[in-house]
Amino acid sequence: MDVSVILFEGFTSLDFIGPVEALQRIPEYSIRYFSPEGGAVSNGKGLNLATEPMADIRPGILLVPGGFGTRKLVNDGAFISALRKAAEESAYCLTVCTGSALLAKTGLLDGLAATSNKRAFDWVVSVNPRVRWQRRARWAKNGKYYSSSGVSAGIDMALGFISDRFGEAKAREAAGAMEYVWNSDPGKDPFAAD
Amino acid sequence: MDVSVILFEGFTSLDFIGPVEALQRIPEYSIRYFSPEGGAVSNGKGLNLATEPMADIRPGILLVPGGFGTRKLVNDGAFISALRKAAEESAYCLTVCTGSALLAKTGLLDGLAATSNKRAFDWVVSVNPRVRWQRRARWAKNGKYYSSSGVSAGIDMALGFISDRFGEAKAREAAGAMEYVWNSDPGKDPFAAD
Repeated sequence: MDVSVILFEGFTSLDFIGPVEALQRIPEYSIRYFSPEGGAVSNGKGLNLATEPMADIRPGILLVPGGFGTRKLVNDGAFISALRKAAEESAYCLTVCTGSALLAKTGLLDGLAATSNKRAFDWVVSVNPRVRWQRRARWAKNGKYYSSSGVSAGIDMALGFISDRFGEAKAREAAGAMEYVWNSDPGKDPFAAD
Repeated sequence: MDVSVILFEGFTSLDFIGPVEALQRIPEYSIRYFSPEGGAVSNGKGLNLATEPMADIRPGILLVPGGFGTRKLVNDGAFISALRKAAEESAYCLTVCTGSALLAKTGLLDGLAATSNKRAFDWVVSVNPRVRWQRRARWAKNGKYYSSSGVSAGIDMALGFISDRFGEAKAREAAGAMEYVWNSDPGKDPFAAD
């Protein structure tokens, strides 16, 4: 099964590299990188990655990171339509940080619980207030949709996703191989305001 | 000041993306990516990055990740020579995971304390037993040389490096912006054998 990472100019690299580091330890998952038109995309801070065009995404697991590029991208109708199609066809759709703003804009999260980056939360809510936004959540899930709070929380969510699919022992094994101290309780959020 | 990341075929992406996510929050640091000859390099799992040739590295901070590619690279005399030159000229040299095996091979760590990935430790020791290898350490430092244990430990080391240079408040601020639960004690290693 493909794990298709959706990239764009101005992505946050740890948002997806963290989850990918966990997910690629599942032998049946292979990781592919996409952007709207394919070709090189940049985080705006010196990192340039090769990608395939989004039209070539196969149904599987979608992984949508955040980053400052999302501020512009939520208003790109063609991108949001392509993302909606890919998310509808996916078996699972995972967002990290402000990636949830992109998915929220498609309407597919309406009425569902989701979360996002603490420092962009009010903006994310403004993108689509019909989502049941959770300010206190390391990650949130609703059926096939998973979303995590900021940056590093994506690693915890990815391990939670592995736990849900393959059992907790598999998630612990992946965390151990990464020497990562897993914050395994999705409701325990050390960065939420009191 | 440049943060120069040394890449090669078969790198582990989280080894450097984690530290970079922390280091790029220091306004005076700019991140550049290098490989022996420059051009595209791959982690062997679908991720392809653009790099500059190592000959163009300017003195500053060197960041050396690990990955399965290190097994071959420790025996590449031209690479090890180029790494030695870059490390000697650097103000600071940080390694993550089996990146410490590469630096150990240059001889620059002889007699110094260093650490590495738990699951490759015996191999790393065999590369150069004259290093004072620490099996229990989230990270270790000796003057300008820092090394971390496996993968995610690099984030903790990078925050420790920021704390050493700019104070703990700055490191806490970076960790908060990343929503990362910092394992701030270099001697507390949850993955070390009892």
